[in-house]
Order: sequence, then C-alpha cells, then structure tokens
Amino acid sequence: MSSVLRLETMNPYVRKAQYAVRGRLYSAALERSKAGLPVVYTNIGNPHGLGQKPITFFRQVVAIVNYPGLLEDEATRRHFPEDVIKRARLYLNHFKGGTGSYQDSRGNAYIREEVAKRLEERDGTKPDISSIFLTDGASAGVSRCLQALIQGSADAVLTPTPQYPIYAAAINLFNGTSAEYYLDEQKGWGLDLDELDRARNKAHDSGGKVRGLVVINPGNPTGQCLSEKNMLEIVEWCKRKKVVLFADEVYQENVYSSGRQFVSFRKVISESKQASDLECFSFHTISKGMVGECGHRGGYFHCNNIDPLVRNEIYKLASTTLCSNTTGEMLVGLMSNPPRPGDPSYELYHLEVRGIYESLRRRAKMLAEALGKMQGVTCNAVEGALYAFPRIRLPHRAVVAAKAAGVPADTYYCLRLLDETGICTVPGSGFGQQEGTFHFRTTILAQEEDFDYLTQSFQEFHARFISEYS
Amino acid sequence: MSSVLRLETMNPYVRKAQYAVRGRLYSAALERSKAGLPVVYTNIGNPHGLGQKPITFFRQVVAIVNYPGLLEDEATRRHFPEDVIKRARLYLNHFKGGTGSYQDSRGNAYIREEVAKRLEERDGTKPDISSIFLTDGASAGVSRCLQALIQGSADAVLTPTPQYPIYAAAINLFNGTSAEYYLDEQKGWGLDLDELDRARNKAHDSGGKVRGLVVINPGNPTGQCLSEKNMLEIVEWCKRKKVVLFADEVYQENVYSSGRQFVSFRKVISESKQASDLECFSFHTISKGMVGECGHRGGYFHCNNIDPLVRNEIYKLASTTLCSNTTGEMLVGLMSNPPRPGDPSYELYHLEVRGIYESLRRRAKMLAEALGKMQGVTCNAVEGALYAFPRIRLPHRAVVAAKAAGVPADTYYCLRLLDETGICTVPGSGFGQQEGTFHFRTTILAQEEDFDYLTQSFQEFHARFISEYS
Repeated sequence: MSSVLRLETMNPYVRKAQYAVRGRLYSAALERSKAGLPVVYTNIGNPHGLGQKPITFFRQVVAIVNYPGLLEDEATRRHFPEDVIKRARLYLNHFKGGTGSYQDSRGNAYIREEVAKRLEERDGTKPDISSIFLTDGASAGVSRCLQALIQGSADAVLTPTPQYPIYAAAINLFNGTSAEYYLDEQKGWGLDLDELDRARNKAHDSGGKVRGLVVINPGNPTGQCLSEKNMLEIVEWCKRKKVVLFADEVYQENVYSSGRQFVSFRKVISESKQASDLECFSFHTISKGMVGECGHRGGYFHCNNIDPLVRNEIYKLASTTLCSNTTGEMLVGLMSNPPRPGDPSYELYHLEVRGIYESLRRRAKMLAEALGKMQGVTCNAVEGALYAFPRIRLPHRAVVAAKAAGVPADTYYCLRLLDETGICTVPGSGFGQQEGTFHFRTTILAQEEDFDYLTQSFQEFHARFISEYS
Repeated sequence: MSSVLRLETMNPYVRKAQYAVRGRLYSAALERSKAGLPVVYTNIGNPHGLGQKPITFFRQVVAIVNYPGLLEDEATRRHFPEDVIKRARLYLNHFKGGTGSYQDSRGNAYIREEVAKRLEERDGTKPDISSIFLTDGASAGVSRCLQALIQGSADAVLTPTPQYPIYAAAINLFNGTSAEYYLDEQKGWGLDLDELDRARNKAHDSGGKVRGLVVINPGNPTGQCLSEKNMLEIVEWCKRKKVVLFADEVYQENVYSSGRQFVSFRKVISESKQASDLECFSFHTISKGMVGECGHRGGYFHCNNIDPLVRNEIYKLASTTLCSNTTGEMLVGLMSNPPRPGDPSYELYHLEVRGIYESLRRRAKMLAEALGKMQGVTCNAVEGALYAFPRIRLPHRAVVAAKAAGVPADTYYCLRLLDETGICTVPGSGFGQQEGTFHFRTTILAQEEDFDYLTQSFQEFHARFISEYS
C-alpha cells in the first residue's frame, strides 16, 4: 500500500471527532433503506423529512426572488398575494445582482437588519447589525466561534453531558479540550452551579484552562427549558470565572410545557447587574422552530460584548468561504420578520404555524408518556426542543450480549430496535451519559397519524427485548 | 480591559490566515459605497454582481422545486416549458421531504449521479458516486480536503505563487505549512518541474514534509491553461514524490484562447502509465463557468484514488455540518446536466450560454490589450478563468511614497485607483508575487457597454499616477 493519505497519516483531530447523530445507527439505517426495507428516521431533527410542510409565505417569496420572471408574467403574478410580491421586490432590491451574487461575508445587510429588529422585539434592545453573522445553518456558526476562541489543547470548553455532539466534535477538530459537565436527570436535566465548579476544577487540575461554557437551552437531547433565575446564576458564574458563554438557542420557539417560557441569554445578560458585559455568542437557525427548513442551511449568530477586533477576525474567517447561501439568508429574514396581523398572508401563516406548534406539543407529551410506560424506562417531560431522551434499564444479560457483539449496550438496543421495527434512534453514548446508565434519543417528529402505530411497535419490541434477556 | 477573548488570546492560526480578495481594498471600497460614491467591484469573480444574468432553465427548475405550488395551479404551470416541469418533478421525487429536508452529508444521491455522468462525458470513465461530495461552494471542499490531509506544522503543501489565497489561508488555519512555488511570468505563467523540486527541497530543508501540491488550472489569478503534456509531467512528479494532488478546476469552462483546451487532471491521471493510481482531489463550482451562481454556494469535489477509509472520515467530517444547501445542490445538478439539443429549453439555454461565453472571450482579449498599452505595464494573455494579472513597473518615488504611507506599493497604487476611479482591484501582494515585482488582479467581468469607459478611466489614472511620481 503506497498511498500518501491513509488513516494513520491523516489529520488526527479529524479522526478523533465523533458525530453520532449520523453515526453507526444512521449507517445501518441507510443499509436497510438500500435493501428496500422501511425506515423511520427519528435519529435527527429533520421535520420536513418526516412530513412537516414548509410555510407557504416563505417559499413563495423564495420562488419569486430566485426567479423574478414570475413577476413579469401577469398570469403567474396573479397567483401570489400582495405581501409576497412586496417582500420579494424588497429582497430583489437589497440583493444587488440577485441571489446569484456573493453577499457580504457576514450576510446580506438588509436580512441582518430584519434579524436585529426581531432581537429587539424579543429582548427589548436592538443590536448593531455588525454583531450579527448569517451562516449556513447554526452548526457552521458554532464551529466558527469555537475556532476563534481555541488557542490549543490547553484551552478547555465546558460542554453539557448529554449534549448535541457538534460541540465536542468541533472542539476536538480545533485541538481544544472538551470538559464535560453533567446535567442532573433526577432534577429534570437541571444545570447546577456546583457541577460547573466541579467540571472546571477537574479541567484545571489536568492543566487545562476553561475559557468557554456551552449551554443548550432548550436542551438537546434533553428537552429541558431553563428558568430565568437559573440563567442569571449561570451568567454571573461565567463572569466570575472569566468564561465566554456559547448559548445554543436553536429551539427557542420549541417550548411546550405550560409554565415554561424561553428567555434569551442576551436579555438575561443585558439585565444583570454583575454580568452585563459578559461575552456571549448565541446561535439560531431556520432548521428548527416551526420553520424546519433544514435543507436550506440558514442560521445566524450574535456577538454579545465581543471585542470588535476579534469580531473583525471572525469576519475575515467568514470571508475565506465568501458568504452563506442566499436562499438560507432569505429564510432567516422571513423567519425573523413573518407576516403580521392584517397582512394578506397572515391568516394562512398563522394557521400553518399554529398547527405545527400544537401538533408538536401533543406529540411531545404523547411520546414522553408512551416511553415512560415501558418496563424499566423513565422519561423526563419534553419541555422543549424536538427530542425525548429516556433512560432504559437494560437486563444484565443484554449488557453481556452487547459486549460479546462488541458494541455499547445502548447501541445494541438501538440496532435491534432498528432491525425489528425500522425505527432509527441514536444511542445515549452518542450524546454522553453518566457511566453505567443507558439512554437513547428519539425525535417527536413522526407525524401524528403514524404515532400510535410507531409507539405500539416500539413498546412491543421493548417488551420482547426485555423478556429475551431477563 | 477584562475581556476573555481578545486578539492576543484568540486562536493564533485564525489571526495568521489572510484573505486579500476581501481585504484592505474591499474594506476601502465598502467605505466608499457607504459614502454614496460609485464602486466597480472587479476585486472578485462575481458575475451576477456585475450584471450577468442567470440561466433561465436553472432558475425555473429551482423556483418550482422550492415552491411546488406552482405546479398545482394551472395558470402558473402553463408558464413553464415541459422539460422544466419534468426536471422539477424528478428533483421533487429525489429530494424526499423536499428541499427543506436534510440530505446525505455527501449531498443528494441523484445529483451526485448527474455529476458522475457529466464526469463520464468529460473524461470517458464514470466515477462511483461515493467518491463525489457536494459542498457549499468549492472553497468549503478545498478547506475540508486540506483539513483531512494536514497532521500538523511539519506537513507542507506546495501552493502556487501567485495563487488564489484560500489555499494559504486554509493551510494556516489547520496549522500546516504553505510552501510557495513560483509560476513563471516570462513563460505565460508556466509551471516548471524544476521549480517544484526547488520549492520541495526548500520545504524539506526547513524540516517540513511536502505531502500535497495545489494546481489551479485554468490559473487564478494568472489565467493560464496548462497543456496536457505539462499536466502529465506534474502527475508523474506527484507520484514519484508521494504527493497528493489538489486540482482546482473551477474555471474549466472558462477557456478563451484558440489552441487551448481544458483537460481534467482526472483524465490525465487515468490515462497515465506511471501515475494511474495517484491520489487526487479535484474541485468544481457553480460560481464560475457560464453559470456564475456565486450566491447560491454550490460545488463539489471528487476523490480520485483516495483510500475509502479516509473518504469515510471526510464523510464524518461533512456530517458535523449535516449537508450542503439544497438550492446549491440542485444548481450543481443542472450545471452537470443542462438541456440537450431537442429539449424545449435548449435553444434559449444555448443562446444564453453562448452569449455569455463569447462576451467573456471578447472581454478577456480587450482587457489584456488595454492594460498592456499602459506605460510600464505588461499583461499575459488571459487564456482562461476570469482575471487579468498585469505587472506594473512603479516609479521609485511611488514606492517611497507607499512606504511612507505604510502600505506595499501595489496596495498604494490600487487604493489610489479606487479613490480616483471607483475601480476596486486586488493588489498582487494578496496573491503573492516575486519579490520586487508589483501586480494587481482585476476581473474581466465588467459589462461590455461599460468597458470602454472603464478602461479609459483606468488608463487616464495610470498616466496621471506615473507622471506624478516620475
């Protein structure tokens, strides 16, 4: 074998990075699909992939701006409501040269203005658009901001366990250290300051310097929604410990439990007495919420109290890949500035969004309850986001069988589940979990008409599996 | 100043990376625009930004797939030719859940099949689609493949001087070493094996190991188109020296000089006797050619003879950002598989593409000639790509004035040009040049109706500048 580029001679950080959401289970599911067997992909938060429909207003605007010929032909123009045409014309004016033209590397300025106004509506104060960067999905932004921070392996970033694995993956890619803090399953996946201290001290004892903290709120895969009081404690802790906060807020519209309400870290920081100058990157996306436009890769991050010179370096970094995609950018604008009451498209928009939200809320409840009914399974309420992350107590003989098969016990369970029902989940080990515990993540996105069938099929599998190994 | 993230405490590789195409000149041009003054952005290959129109067939398909409601309404459906509707239906079938759904992290399989067929038409052999990765523009792919290769600062990659700066920037970001080889301006920016040897030996003498070679063909910013004989020599050199070839072929459709023809490195490798198993990544994009869809961020790379285990690691790397954007993916498919003779849209398609090509060809010639007429300026023929990269001999007093102003002399010249004419170019120092020589890059993309005015305004500025400092 004379090849230059082999596993042993490639970038070791690339090899080290793991991303289970498209890992072993996903590969097995693809094989199954190829063989013509049905698969329900609940491994990833991909609403349209499971039947959710796009928002009509958004797609109408996108169609016209990408093909303005629709406005030149009277027959086609008549198809569109007035406010669609108005918005499309506005975007055509602001995307000089059309959507085929490169944009500023931070994203189109008009779209960033729409984002800034949305942040003002949400938080009470309007940011400068120079602190907003549009990106190809939230992940690209997360990766960029972590890259800016990490100087080398001595730099540690605290990341939640369980966590959405982009964080550990990106930190590993940039040769930083991902230091785990645990969310408390007993307290509804709560975030405790003592645990942050423990994790920070542990990293420091190993020679690392903790310079960042990642908080995912609402939680992924854990679904909890933080209280404002808890957030203020976190913010003040970051300030005291000289830590940059990375606030993953991509599920900000996905809060289902009554009594819970999303509050942004940006707002908590701005209103805090001791930490109003805390450095914070926050992330949002078009892929979640009621929009669900995963395939179009749109998102943004906001730089809160970030040194303008550092922001310039991030701008330069963004410029090496020129700009984010224009359809994704438009969808960020549309999400931030949807039809308002009185607009011709408002009624349909409201109906669509309300329908999706209510259905997600029902499914969040149904799924957690259905899973919780299974023997040896406990599942916290899905307060927010798109996932349930139940704990499963596996019989000792199942753990032994998994070991013999050379895979973690939760992976073994999930592979069997896929094999027997076609349901593709992700094992808890892909997100991290307390040693000796087993979990899996499944989305709440299966359509309601399939829900009974799927939960029944899942419950039957589980009963068989447990009885086989008891 | 108590902030955590400052220039001195951020990732030093981010600071080190440079990207002049959106650097000092571009910033000055933006300031000028803000002040209400006119700017002609010839700093970047952005065809639509300077008035080139999108291909109608492409945008019609994109509009329908993103908003299938156009097919449900008879009045709007009648607007579209049959082959547009047929292709849109095909894509709707192959993008399960529509364009809002995540795709495979290598890109939609049907689109990759269209790419594979195009590569077969071009090179005579069809690659497996598992060796094709769709990306958000070519830059994202370049960055990913370099990242996979580079293990650390001892790994060197040979990059051309002058070069499009994404290469040095990406290599720096991944803590590798960019080792310069010079193109020979006297020989029409030719690539000489002795020079590759010199650059390789120099890198080895400094303790580096050369593991990659970047070749941009047709050249950027230099515009030369390599002969097949020269390419074969390069390929065999890479094989002998155990070097992975990075073939930037984004300008493969942009060849203007009669007697010159683009041949792909993939074809040369497959037909070579001694190097048919050479490892090579090649890159293509929707941003150049006659398509010019820069804003939609579409592209692909092909892995030629790359170890499948390494390819899997690249697949995993791609999966951390989930997938490239679906509109960009569709445009890759449309570029690879355009209307054929006999199709209802063929005539218009052919007219549009031909018109753009002929105009680019005229402009390539006109620009090189107009620049070459200026005192002390020599400009090689623009055989391909979208740029002229003339050499300017600056009077000694201009070099002194630049030094006093604290900028390189070519930057000084370009800033004055911008200030006095609104023409935004990029100084040669942004691409690299032989010590003591000065150049700038300008695109051939200004529309023909503006050409006379712009070249005259440029020539007048140049005469004034030279006389001022002589």
